Amino acid sequence: MTMEVLLRSPLDMHIHFRQDAMLDAVAPLSAQHFAGGVIMPNLVPPVDTVDRLLWYTSEVKRAVGNHRFQPYMTLFFRNYTREELVAAKPHIIGIKLYPAGATTNSENGVREIMSMKHVFAMMEELDIPLLVHGETHGFVMDREQEFCEVYRTLATTFPGLRITMEHITTEAAVLLLDEFENLRATVTPHHLIITLDDVAGGMLNPHLFCKPIAKRPEDRAALLAAALKPHPRLMMGSDSAPHPVDKKESAGCAAGVFTAPILLPLLAELFERNNALGSLQAFVSDNARRLYGVEPPSTTVHLVKEPMTIPERYGNVVPMWAGKTLSWSVRSVE
Amino acid sequence: MTMEVLLRSPLDMHIHFRQDAMLDAVAPLSAQHFAGGVIMPNLVPPVDTVDRLLWYTSEVKRAVGNHRFQPYMTLFFRNYTREELVAAKPHIIGIKLYPAGATTNSENGVREIMSMKHVFAMMEELDIPLLVHGETHGFVMDREQEFCEVYRTLATTFPGLRITMEHITTEAAVLLLDEFENLRATVTPHHLIITLDDVAGGMLNPHLFCKPIAKRPEDRAALLAAALKPHPRLMMGSDSAPHPVDKKESAGCAAGVFTAPILLPLLAELFERNNALGSLQAFVSDNARRLYGVEPPSTTVHLVKEPMTIPERYGNVVPMWAGKTLSWSVRSVE
Repeated sequence: MTMEVLLRSPLDMHIHFRQDAMLDAVAPLSAQHFAGGVIMPNLVPPVDTVDRLLWYTSEVKRAVGNHRFQPYMTLFFRNYTREELVAAKPHIIGIKLYPAGATTNSENGVREIMSMKHVFAMMEELDIPLLVHGETHGFVMDREQEFCEVYRTLATTFPGLRITMEHITTEAAVLLLDEFENLRATVTPHHLIITLDDVAGGMLNPHLFCKPIAKRPEDRAALLAAALKPHPRLMMGSDSAPHPVDKKESAGCAAGVFTAPILLPLLAELFERNNALGSLQAFVSDNARRLYGVEPPSTTVHLVKEPMTIPERYGNVVPMWAGKTLSWSVRSVE
Repeated sequence: MTMEVLLRSPLDMHIHFRQDAMLDAVAPLSAQHFAGGVIMPNLVPPVDTVDRLLWYTSEVKRAVGNHRFQPYMTLFFRNYTREELVAAKPHIIGIKLYPAGATTNSENGVREIMSMKHVFAMMEELDIPLLVHGETHGFVMDREQEFCEVYRTLATTFPGLRITMEHITTEAAVLLLDEFENLRATVTPHHLIITLDDVAGGMLNPHLFCKPIAKRPEDRAALLAAALKPHPRLMMGSDSAPHPVDKKESAGCAAGVFTAPILLPLLAELFERNNALGSLQAFVSDNARRLYGVEPPSTTVHLVKEPMTIPERYGNVVPMWAGKTLSWSVRSVE
């Protein structure tokens, strides 16, 4: 008997599609399995006007092609006027805030977050979710935990603002999720699986280097427990972030783990190993639909426990665990 | 007025010279500035017989050529007989213990350290120093701190055994140094300068990846304070470890920072910035001479505060801070 799982309309709530040739290469790899996803706006220059948003939306839709995939677009946070927010609202699922310099193409991010209270207040009033890359500029292992104070202030000051802590990596963030009803979070599959040991404990592995960096075993344990439960305000967001191989295997390796084409087999293997396959539907779709009030295209992904060997490359991008074999694979998408 | 420093017979108490072409390439880069150094035995296969030790000694001497440089040789720790220890003693400065798998070419290392008590007891009796790569197999940021319990047990059980904690990287190890008279330590210049932030806080930098990995800012502060004092049982050991560039800028990056040719300018800059140039002689020579009772060739290195731009490569090896400019340089060695 082969084990099987049917997933309805899986969603990836945090994806980097990039632009131009990279967009064309990676968008179909998400769209082949997912019914929708949140597309991050950290292009160069950032997506921070309605004009640029509409252009990027059409670019994404073109790259997605005939797949039934709903891109949920985001704006790059800046000091927006109310008029700009009103104009943008119909076209976006939220606005993504990057502390300046925190990750790839975030140089135009915010320097003093609490100097933007007037924008958060307008977003609260207009019910536009705030998506946050939550890291300070402190020591790399402490950045997310230190940022929890900012989350706490935001959640308290703007109780009606829906705030997503993106790609959480620490036990501290998991604990915070339980404190405030208006906080929700995404977590990547790789942060459920790896720790800093996998990045730098043996040989240094640039293909597992990302921001926020993978943390300690007790952090991974807390994240995994929340995902398996599943926590009702935790959503799968892969943060799949392609870089050409020469930007990874280099003297200055870019941050990002590319997982888009392997996410569902990876998760099926992980959840089955933890006897939690029953939680997968909520983690990869239902929680996000409820929390964001979205209705993605109706698809059914048929996962089977049959081996899938991860390719060494997708174009010029090396995926997580290149060459390894997963015990689950995608049989069909209908 | 140009600032100048004269160093007498500087010693590098922890060097990886490798073998064959790499030995020929790197040995002169240490020997041009240093009057001697401790040569690590983790070749493939390891240097763990007197025959192989004598062969490696002659190889090192050949590669050093006409430089006045005394190689202080080491054996790779294993379950030696008393007869072997007696035969080896005249040819070595100590025996280096690697926990199995802890670093480059350590697969033949020790699995259960305290199962080797009989060897430690013989080394204590014969007054052969024990040099230790002190890391457990735990989480990468905890390995050295966890190993401190092993150091504590060794120091207590064998009070007459001279034990060097090699390349310490944590505040915990600095504190331990003060607890036991028979513990001494080496520290690398790069661990006085960098933290994990420099390895993985911005772009990932494979050329600053080493074992033990660079730790937290408070660890660096403790190490630097001990070096600047200078602590009387702390010695400069660079752990300079060359790897060909294609083994560093790769999907599985080898551990090691190559610093041999820039060590003295790097240290002069660091000690001057901290108003501690007066401590440099003890840190790079006198402490080691006293602790090991060695008398290296008499040399004088003339350091001047004149800029030195670090080459992008030495052969096929990328040094630490390739392309950057240091404020000090070596004017002459006499």
